[in-house]
Amino acid sequence: MNKVVTFGEIMLRLSTERHLRFSQANKFAASYGGGEFNVAVSLANYGVCTEFVTRLPSNEIGGCALKEMRKFNVESKNVVYGGDRLGIYFLETGAGTRGSNVVYDRANSSMATIEQGEINWEEVLKDATWFHWSGITPAISESAAQECLQAVKTAHKFGLTVSCDLNYRSKLWKYGKAPKDVMPELLHYSSIILGDLDTAFFMLGKDQVEPDYQDEKSLPELYDILFKSCPNLKTVATTLRYSISASHQQIGGVLYDGNRLYTADIKDVTPVVDRVGSGDAFMGGLIYGLINDTIDKQKALNIAVAACCLKHTISGDYNLITLDEINRLLSGDASGKVSR
Amino acid sequence: MNKVVTFGEIMLRLSTERHLRFSQANKFAASYGGGEFNVAVSLANYGVCTEFVTRLPSNEIGGCALKEMRKFNVESKNVVYGGDRLGIYFLETGAGTRGSNVVYDRANSSMATIEQGEINWEEVLKDATWFHWSGITPAISESAAQECLQAVKTAHKFGLTVSCDLNYRSKLWKYGKAPKDVMPELLHYSSIILGDLDTAFFMLGKDQVEPDYQDEKSLPELYDILFKSCPNLKTVATTLRYSISASHQQIGGVLYDGNRLYTADIKDVTPVVDRVGSGDAFMGGLIYGLINDTIDKQKALNIAVAACCLKHTISGDYNLITLDEINRLLSGDASGKVSR
Amino acid sequence: MNKVVTFGEIMLRLSTERHLRFSQANKFAASYGGGEFNVAVSLANYGVCTEFVTRLPSNEIGGCALKEMRKFNVESKNVVYGGDRLGIYFLETGAGTRGSNVVYDRANSSMATIEQGEINWEEVLKDATWFHWSGITPAISESAAQECLQAVKTAHKFGLTVSCDLNYRSKLWKYGKAPKDVMPELLHYSSIILGDLDTAFFMLGKDQVEPDYQDEKSLPELYDILFKSCPNLKTVATTLRYSISASHQQIGGVLYDGNRLYTADIKDVTPVVDRVGSGDAFMGGLIYGLINDTIDKQKALNIAVAACCLKHTISGDYNLITLDEINRLLSGDASGKVSR
Amino acid sequence: MNKVVTFGEIMLRLSTERHLRFSQANKFAASYGGGEFNVAVSLANYGVCTEFVTRLPSNEIGGCALKEMRKFNVESKNVVYGGDRLGIYFLETGAGTRGSNVVYDRANSSMATIEQGEINWEEVLKDATWFHWSGITPAISESAAQECLQAVKTAHKFGLTVSCDLNYRSKLWKYGKAPKDVMPELLHYSSIILGDLDTAFFMLGKDQVEPDYQDEKSLPELYDILFKSCPNLKTVATTLRYSISASHQQIGGVLYDGNRLYTADIKDVTPVVDRVGSGDAFMGGLIYGLINDTIDKQKALNIAVAACCLKHTISGDYNLITLDEINRLLSGDASGKVSR
Amino acid sequence: MNKVVTFGEIMLRLSTERHLRFSQANKFAASYGGGEFNVAVSLANYGVCTEFVTRLPSNEIGGCALKEMRKFNVESKNVVYGGDRLGIYFLETGAGTRGSNVVYDRANSSMATIEQGEINWEEVLKDATWFHWSGITPAISESAAQECLQAVKTAHKFGLTVSCDLNYRSKLWKYGKAPKDVMPELLHYSSIILGDLDTAFFMLGKDQVEPDYQDEKSLPELYDILFKSCPNLKTVATTLRYSISASHQQIGGVLYDGNRLYTADIKDVTPVVDRVGSGDAFMGGLIYGLINDTIDKQKALNIAVAACCLKHTISGDYNLITLDEINRLLSGDASGKVSR
Amino acid sequence: MNKVVTFGEIMLRLSTERHLRFSQANKFAASYGGGEFNVAVSLANYGVCTEFVTRLPSNEIGGCALKEMRKFNVESKNVVYGGDRLGIYFLETGAGTRGSNVVYDRANSSMATIEQGEINWEEVLKDATWFHWSGITPAISESAAQECLQAVKTAHKFGLTVSCDLNYRSKLWKYGKAPKDVMPELLHYSSIILGDLDTAFFMLGKDQVEPDYQDEKSLPELYDILFKSCPNLKTVATTLRYSISASHQQIGGVLYDGNRLYTADIKDVTPVVDRVGSGDAFMGGLIYGLINDTIDKQKALNIAVAACCLKHTISGDYNLITLDEINRLLSGDASGKVSR
Repeated sequence: MNKVVTFGEIMLRLSTERHLRFSQANKFAASYGGGEFNVAVSLANYGVCTEFVTRLPSNEIGGCALKEMRKFNVESKNVVYGGDRLGIYFLETGAGTRGSNVVYDRANSSMATIEQGEINWEEVLKDATWFHWSGITPAISESAAQECLQAVKTAHKFGLTVSCDLNYRSKLWKYGKAPKDVMPELLHYSSIILGDLDTAFFMLGKDQVEPDYQDEKSLPELYDILFKSCPNLKTVATTLRYSISASHQQIGGVLYDGNRLYTADIKDVTPVVDRVGSGDAFMGGLIYGLINDTIDKQKALNIAVAACCLKHTISGDYNLITLDEINRLLSGDASGKVSR
Repeated sequence: MNKVVTFGEIMLRLSTERHLRFSQANKFAASYGGGEFNVAVSLANYGVCTEFVTRLPSNEIGGCALKEMRKFNVESKNVVYGGDRLGIYFLETGAGTRGSNVVYDRANSSMATIEQGEINWEEVLKDATWFHWSGITPAISESAAQECLQAVKTAHKFGLTVSCDLNYRSKLWKYGKAPKDVMPELLHYSSIILGDLDTAFFMLGKDQVEPDYQDEKSLPELYDILFKSCPNLKTVATTLRYSISASHQQIGGVLYDGNRLYTADIKDVTPVVDRVGSGDAFMGGLIYGLINDTIDKQKALNIAVAACCLKHTISGDYNLITLDEINRLLSGDASGKVSR
Repeated sequence: MNKVVTFGEIMLRLSTERHLRFSQANKFAASYGGGEFNVAVSLANYGVCTEFVTRLPSNEIGGCALKEMRKFNVESKNVVYGGDRLGIYFLETGAGTRGSNVVYDRANSSMATIEQGEINWEEVLKDATWFHWSGITPAISESAAQECLQAVKTAHKFGLTVSCDLNYRSKLWKYGKAPKDVMPELLHYSSIILGDLDTAFFMLGKDQVEPDYQDEKSLPELYDILFKSCPNLKTVATTLRYSISASHQQIGGVLYDGNRLYTADIKDVTPVVDRVGSGDAFMGGLIYGLINDTIDKQKALNIAVAACCLKHTISGDYNLITLDEINRLLSGDASGKVSR
Repeated sequence: MNKVVTFGEIMLRLSTERHLRFSQANKFAASYGGGEFNVAVSLANYGVCTEFVTRLPSNEIGGCALKEMRKFNVESKNVVYGGDRLGIYFLETGAGTRGSNVVYDRANSSMATIEQGEINWEEVLKDATWFHWSGITPAISESAAQECLQAVKTAHKFGLTVSCDLNYRSKLWKYGKAPKDVMPELLHYSSIILGDLDTAFFMLGKDQVEPDYQDEKSLPELYDILFKSCPNLKTVATTLRYSISASHQQIGGVLYDGNRLYTADIKDVTPVVDRVGSGDAFMGGLIYGLINDTIDKQKALNIAVAACCLKHTISGDYNLITLDEINRLLSGDASGKVSR
Repeated sequence: MNKVVTFGEIMLRLSTERHLRFSQANKFAASYGGGEFNVAVSLANYGVCTEFVTRLPSNEIGGCALKEMRKFNVESKNVVYGGDRLGIYFLETGAGTRGSNVVYDRANSSMATIEQGEINWEEVLKDATWFHWSGITPAISESAAQECLQAVKTAHKFGLTVSCDLNYRSKLWKYGKAPKDVMPELLHYSSIILGDLDTAFFMLGKDQVEPDYQDEKSLPELYDILFKSCPNLKTVATTLRYSISASHQQIGGVLYDGNRLYTADIKDVTPVVDRVGSGDAFMGGLIYGLINDTIDKQKALNIAVAACCLKHTISGDYNLITLDEINRLLSGDASGKVSR
Repeated sequence: MNKVVTFGEIMLRLSTERHLRFSQANKFAASYGGGEFNVAVSLANYGVCTEFVTRLPSNEIGGCALKEMRKFNVESKNVVYGGDRLGIYFLETGAGTRGSNVVYDRANSSMATIEQGEINWEEVLKDATWFHWSGITPAISESAAQECLQAVKTAHKFGLTVSCDLNYRSKLWKYGKAPKDVMPELLHYSSIILGDLDTAFFMLGKDQVEPDYQDEKSLPELYDILFKSCPNLKTVATTLRYSISASHQQIGGVLYDGNRLYTADIKDVTPVVDRVGSGDAFMGGLIYGLINDTIDKQKALNIAVAACCLKHTISGDYNLITLDEINRLLSGDASGKVSR
């Protein structure tokens, strides 16, 4: 049986409701989320056995995050405790021409101050089949980056599939190292990468490119450069996102396996209830597709795109969507009929 | 003066707000509704004298439903009391590609366990001019079906106009009888039917058809088959609904009186605030149009379509729309300007 | 340094949430607003020194309005106190084909019962550079109109720029005078006017016109008539608004300076979170543009249109938008991307 | 069968929740209430046929008040329409040492601007057995006082029992007449009076008294003075209220019928959920007791006190308490056990 | 290590907030609870390994209950699925002299329609050390009673400690059997009983008694009768509850082990936030005390009383209290100081 | 005219509502507060000119804190900007035997990372008459302590009255210094101290004492020791607080001026709506009393105690109480009557 372990930070998410600006709010909706945890929730919803590894503070707010993991059936037995605080992000959800706004308050979090060796990766990964990390963790702090490398190496040693969502956030990477100093070694051990080509090139320290995702013929050549840099790479995928407005997005996807380029049709997403976490929904769908022998690559990509679209209709970071709902959308029913 | 009596079940409606999934909600908005009651509220809003007949439990939740009837000026003096519970339905409102989801919890409700003869139909209908029922009531339980038949027969005997919204719900009809066992006799006494052609054929036990509502020439022939099966039939109407997404609907309508086919233009409905009850709004508009001598059939159909469109902008089951608002829309003003 | 003084009424705004009809609401969102105050908030958000002059009742509700002025950094030191009540307006926000609905309850407010001479305009305006009023104040009551005239005359005497938003509200003007009896003298002293051509003609007592704003060549001739009637006039602007539905608006603008006609492209605004106050947002953007020497007239108009568009995404009367957000939209980014 | 008609003003009540001060609230709970309407709701809850007569504005806010009457089964068929606004009162609920605070905004309401003769009292009262008014209505405006006198005279002529709650509010009575100018004639026709002795003396223009309600022997002499002034008087009752704090009240009552003094034990009321309307609950209980032949005067007083106590546990103006709950308290069970 | 298994029904709890009556509420707070599940949550909070066994419907509402179990760290792996609905109870929380009101809607729930043999008790209990049931389960339906008997017998066979909270609810027991027909055999296998003496006598079919819990000398004799009827009985405990009002309770306890009577001091509980589940909190504390070898019987009783008291300060069915908080209260600190 | 400057940290306060535990909340009420700011709000409410000096982050959350200062009329012109985050504290409000719980998340806040010299104290204090600080600021970080010392010295140099609330928080003081290392020099310049005797002794590095505040004769001797240690000391005050439960407090006070001991009667405070900030309310009342020449010391102490009591009825950190309300309580009216 498959077991997917994801590693990263889970934060308290404080958001205003009904598109209110921060200065108008006298309450915040409180939920929890973070890229790698969001992927775990997606997979748990699809019935995959998943575990999330992180570091939490030993206070009530950390306890709330732990209860959230349990609620959504994500195993938490290897969570470590220490540090002073759960990271926080504030979210103001935009509409139309006004974009959403995120204020990060995650410095000095328990996850950022993890000390190397706190997690016994050999124990954690001994019965896992897949390890997922993202470019956020090495961006938080040097020790988080080191812990991530330890995880990736152990996963590789144990023969797990290692996947990475590049997730570049320019506001992070403040501890003195650049992505190109850290990411190449981490990507060395990864066999699945999700990200834009220009982000991948940037993180690998290569010259910037301006890929034209509409020109499908030109893409394999560019993806092949990644395959050369990452010796264990098997699959690269890219989420295509066209923002008409904060309330109207268009979503598609591309997948390349070194041989063939797969593309998924662009879907309209309107209105957008909440787009935060939609990339993680893509990643969760992709892993689900690739982990199942009965699902081919085209279908895996289609699932990823459908999951990403459906996530936009859900408040909060997670993709609380069932396989049935994804399959209904994939079978062509985007009509949003009442089920009764 | 006209007086319309409708008969059916009113339920407690428990819905999540702001498109939350059930698993995200720690509160439910509580309101009340049900197809035949919704029609009564529409008519009361238009100034028509209306009465709703149902069976309620003698507990506080039944009392809340009763207060709701009173609030919206629907006469409740012939409601009967008994049984154990008010039926419930849970609603999760979708958005975009995610459809709304209804979980029914209406089995064994006070209405479903009505015993034949509890309602004195001769007394109820003595000063009424119109009786409305829908295909939901005979689907709930055998005794409800029998009570409905009793009502329809009495209404027919007293010379009332009898209207029916076919309202087929596959999740009901669990008590051992199929629609074709029950509906033909009920429809025998009805002079107005609202429903799709295929539903009507199915309920009458006829071979299935696949009508093309865009091909107006082909429709009279199909409707005529209904006229042959239902000797008292005077008017059939069909709501045309094209679901672009859960947030975008297109609404039109067709009406046939045995001689002539009337059609109403398709209107775009976006965004959708709440589509539950929009069919009942169509029915309410249709009855209002047909009951008034000064309103011709084309206008009656137009009112039905406009009411249906406007209902999509209202939270809850009922069409809390005034005649002024319908007329404004019919006069071509869909601009949604601020009235100030 | 510039200092803008605006004069008018601030009201308690009681609105239903989530498109509820009044009869469905058991609570009202409470905020504060009014045309001229909304302009002041816009300017304060842009960093302009602003002051609002009004008359408030000496009770707790008046105190709430005062706290609101302070919160948004609008100077309130010349507010006068007296009268019995803060004006109120009730708002039901529409959607799609259902328009929003405003119920005014502002008669006999503290502002309407202002007595001439309560405000020492020489003191108020001594260090100001701009005075803004609107057609609402002279519509409230005779004494408010007189106080407004006193303000305009003093502003003119002191050499301030005087701007007016015509803001015709047919439900006001109940005290026995028509706009044409009052407005011409007030507009005589004004150098900036915002309004439709037909409103301007009506208020000046001229024959009605039906301007075609798409036919840009025909407009200067019409605007020139205003210049002839208003000897101090320097600039006239008109907000172009096309209502597709309550949830979808198209916004553009025209500006004429006696020599040249400037136009701004029509922008789509969808969804509409709250359109009340969007005209004031236009006015605020226009003043901001015209007050800054480094901003030319085309850019001033563009800012006004962008501010108006962005306002539609904000709940409440005010345009809580920053210059950064306006500039991002003006630079072509309407994508509503998440800022993180 | 008994039918009670009450006459007065119903207002929109806007209250902060959870003891928030006005300046902390960004929403108001919206409900409806007013002394005489509150009495009607009490009686309707007890199963008495009741009707409320008032004047409402023909706008949506007036429509909400009308729906509230219907919801609570108070007949509204003789409501008249006109005027501009529904009166409003703002409420901030205190706690402990901080008292609740009411801000009235009821001047110029539809009820205050009623014109004499708008109500056809002969028609209204033709099938009634009891008419109830309070000292608030003649305090609102001269025309309201005149309409009230007309009602009282008609009721007297038709042989109805006429009851009055003195309800002195010093903030009203602003139209140029004092209570002693108006109330004596109104009380002349009344047979039941609820009020403090000092209020009664004041309203009748008599020398002030300082009754000691603990000294039961001294009371009949004082009450007898009222009997001499009011020739139709049969019963006087006084609510005894001792305020320990905003959260702790002690409630008792005294009733005198010209012969005998009845007293009810003081009951502790803590915590206080909402004390507004508790006097009206006393009045409602008193009328219920006196209207029933099977209830003696001592029991009527006890019901009034129990209803008043229980009202303090209910949010909003009305006493939403059943007879069962009153009887349970009267039978000595103040334990507040869970009914399950 | 200890592992406690509890068996029973978990329901959806729909409660009004802020003491609102049902007829005032337009939303319900939604949570989940049930006697035996509440005990499991208590124990999980104290760090005891616990599992809850029940039957849930395979719909979204059942899924919500499952997520709740997970969130609070109660093992759910032996939950069975089937039936149509999750039981519901409606709760209106009283205050002062007004008691709380529960409306049950739990008939025909998935748990009530469990079929014998659906649960493999040998598998469920193989690694458990304690089994807890209550008198509610055999009261729901005959098949639930049979399943409970199967569980108790298996637990006894495996040598588990078996505890029972008598929990008599007169509104249940509707399926044709009386407690005395069913409970004796179930209690035969139980070694810990929580309940009033009169309830125990009633359920065992004995003559009614009126125990005086203040007369500690008389109690052993009565408890000894229970020991004679229940051959495996080791400990009986009784919660003492004196209701001053719905907002003020007094809580104490008695424990008898066949030899010695232990008593705990009466504690004042005011205000009461929510008393539902406080008996389950007592049971949870008692099990925690008795399961730990290092805790003597007096301390176990004290913990039970303290847990019961603290539960009254928590909204919802569960006792979300930590051991630290219980110990703080037991050490004499009832001061409710801010921890900061 | 008096002008009071206070200096310290303002935090975002995130609290659960209705006594919910953190794990039950899916939203937090968001407000702002901090000891020294709370004092400023009190004084502003009493009509005293006040200014708050702090350091805020240049992000939207810092902007919200700034708007809060403005709203409550506290001057903010000398606020400095820098650092990364606004400090946060999470609050769970207890009830009865369950105390409130605070989780601090204020490390590395903008205020804690203030750099010496960022504030130009000579400029800030040039027109002030009073400077207030508390023992929290030197506990946050070494640089905050240094900035505070700079402020105190400058205030002393300029002849301002310097007051200090000792406010010992054991969870702070983490940067390597103990109170006795820092506080003596700060207190050297202070003439008004609010605090317990044992806290004062501890902070001054003296042997611990156990004062008996009921034994008024013993107190002057102890207070005199403080006078010897603090050469500029003129007045010491101590809040007496007896916690019956989280919902019931008893508040009194003692003031000593080197000559005479003043005491205020103990007042019962029940229920407690929110006790956070009640000490700051005492401080605000004390400053108000001492700053006014017309108020003697006994009255100043009484005002402080009354303000502290009334604060317990207000949600949030601030004492939103007017002088009228304080005076009403001081005049003996604790009855909490409705003002109408």
